[in-house]
Amino acid sequence: MSSPAAASPDHAAAPASGSSASSPSSSFSSASFSVSVSAPAIRAALDLLGSRLPIIQAPLAGVQLSALTLAACRAGAVGSLPAALLTLDVLQRELQLISSGTDQPYNVNFFAHVTPLPDPAREARWRERLAPYYTEYGVDPATITSGFGRQPFNHEVADVVEAFKPPIVSFHFGLPAPDLLARVKAWGSRVLSTATTVEEAVWLQAHGADGVIAQGWEAGGHRGHFLSADLTRQCGLMALLPQVVKAVSIPVIATGGISDAASVRAALALGAGAVQPGTAFLLSAEAITSPPHRQALRQPDLHHTAVTNLMTGRPARGIVNRLMREVGPMNELAPAFPMAGNALAPLRAKAEAQGSGDFSPLWAGQNFSGLKELPAADVIAALAEGFDEGVR
Amino acid sequence: MSSPAAASPDHAAAPASGSSASSPSSSFSSASFSVSVSAPAIRAALDLLGSRLPIIQAPLAGVQLSALTLAACRAGAVGSLPAALLTLDVLQRELQLISSGTDQPYNVNFFAHVTPLPDPAREARWRERLAPYYTEYGVDPATITSGFGRQPFNHEVADVVEAFKPPIVSFHFGLPAPDLLARVKAWGSRVLSTATTVEEAVWLQAHGADGVIAQGWEAGGHRGHFLSADLTRQCGLMALLPQVVKAVSIPVIATGGISDAASVRAALALGAGAVQPGTAFLLSAEAITSPPHRQALRQPDLHHTAVTNLMTGRPARGIVNRLMREVGPMNELAPAFPMAGNALAPLRAKAEAQGSGDFSPLWAGQNFSGLKELPAADVIAALAEGFDEGVR
Repeated sequence: MSSPAAASPDHAAAPASGSSASSPSSSFSSASFSVSVSAPAIRAALDLLGSRLPIIQAPLAGVQLSALTLAACRAGAVGSLPAALLTLDVLQRELQLISSGTDQPYNVNFFAHVTPLPDPAREARWRERLAPYYTEYGVDPATITSGFGRQPFNHEVADVVEAFKPPIVSFHFGLPAPDLLARVKAWGSRVLSTATTVEEAVWLQAHGADGVIAQGWEAGGHRGHFLSADLTRQCGLMALLPQVVKAVSIPVIATGGISDAASVRAALALGAGAVQPGTAFLLSAEAITSPPHRQALRQPDLHHTAVTNLMTGRPARGIVNRLMREVGPMNELAPAFPMAGNALAPLRAKAEAQGSGDFSPLWAGQNFSGLKELPAADVIAALAEGFDEGVR
Repeated sequence: MSSPAAASPDHAAAPASGSSASSPSSSFSSASFSVSVSAPAIRAALDLLGSRLPIIQAPLAGVQLSALTLAACRAGAVGSLPAALLTLDVLQRELQLISSGTDQPYNVNFFAHVTPLPDPAREARWRERLAPYYTEYGVDPATITSGFGRQPFNHEVADVVEAFKPPIVSFHFGLPAPDLLARVKAWGSRVLSTATTVEEAVWLQAHGADGVIAQGWEAGGHRGHFLSADLTRQCGLMALLPQVVKAVSIPVIATGGISDAASVRAALALGAGAVQPGTAFLLSAEAITSPPHRQALRQPDLHHTAVTNLMTGRPARGIVNRLMREVGPMNELAPAFPMAGNALAPLRAKAEAQGSGDFSPLWAGQNFSGLKELPAADVIAALAEGFDEGVR
């Protein structure tokens, strides 16, 4: 498939073995990085991604816009833009900033869910459960809107994205309907999606994905499952990754616990061709992580995460806070995705105004060991050291 | 600390860098194995274990006796004997077989739980829940015994073990009371225990453990937690292992998903000094894994595990079967450990007699990728290839 970003000084579509050329616009020193040609999985991933490094900066919905995307691209990774929470206007603006700010490949990420039918009774039960908190915080439930939530990828969104023909488009919760997927592929975009089980990886390859993101149980944020809602089917990366690698022939990108060079080496040992770190960027200045979220990330005694459906209606991993302790972490009262957040919004706003993350999604994975307050380029450089040996 | 097994032709207390000498009694070819002296974590683990390889064959309660222990020892790993399910007579017999069968270091494993007080009401509620199955299988509930269950390590057990002064003694669910622990250490035995969180690893080092077994969420069998029963605190190995390695100074042995050379390399990359594979041995002839259990292990479409408290009262990972699907996998009706199994025993017996594992603990971890029907020595040789490169 053609690479949308033509050859340019800082875009190496097919990195040679040995050190890749430094780019004037990149703050990343390539001196320590080389890709051994004896690593076919890495080679295949680089051919797919078109980037200098086999690293995708994980799309972090709610805590980043294009600043992080651009910083990642300029450092040689694939920068990502999470689009699910963006209005069409903002999406267009951010895509413009990215496409004009770099020649490097970038990834636009969408959710592939189906908007649920309204269920007023379920909404009412959820608000009833939250009533004590409304009282405590002086929130009038009548002011709660049934808001925008998270928009799935649809033709309206595709109309905006089409002008940019992004090099990479990734999905969470499966793939969009065949006609939408065909549109994306017609742009020349390479399609990635998330698999939490071997079955999902096989399904994605069969249904047109060009690469699969194997999401270990360690990962922060939303679990990307779509074939089964049984969370017991989801495995730690040590188990998921090698079994996915065996089951598919498309490149496998590892995510979940990818935190530093050591975890990169571990993922490569297990057969990944590339890695997708997320939590590692949460304290970077280029992310717009909120103050209460940053504060929780900085405190080791708060490094307890759990998978919760309270924040949005779908299971997602974050730092355990008051809401999760008292109402969850999993509660069948939470409405269908993405509606649960509406009833929480006023509580979240009031609490955050007081500097508290008690009702906020404090997304984070289980592996805090590589988390540092560094620019994204330095985070990427640290991760890239994991690629600097010959890999079997 | 002194090594209980004095230097002998097939016991290398301090393996030199480069190939270790072959032992006439070992079927393991050492030609492909060398330990780089640039790997201090491995060095420290070998010094602790006293074995030729940084591999502990995981103790597999209910599916092995000394035959597997001896096979592992002769292949250069630390063979283990799970003692929790054994009567004192059988324990003594097995220890005799092991100690007379090898000069290599071996590990005797005990549970460090406290036997719960009888709770007839809870037992009765549990049997009530199982009543439909009793009817289906023609089991008379009056015939159920409040049986032996699993015995914790105590002075009576120590009296039997003392004569053997095992090189290594390991515990699950923490450590025994200080006086018992002091007895064990007075034998010269090196003490290991399982940590499912960083806090548990730190606690174990502070309370006298010589090495810690970091148990990732992927692991089969009983979860070894003892400081908190909150399972959300337990992490995939990608996250647990590096964080434990950072937190303690004693050797860290990785378990959970350790299935083949690739997973060994991954564990080493994350800082482990040794590995403890378990599931990988379940199809070896030296194990006494039951026919229904073996059958389930052989069928890829049955490779779905979950953590369940139904089998014994404590969370443990096994292949999802009928009981787990219909009553669990977690159910607060299950009595306290280790009492839940009594009420299941007649159902298990009847079902197994028909070749069914519907009511049996089909222990297994999440990573089936290295599982092969091979002698234990070949399983170990395959894993040992993960150590045969210079490791950082």
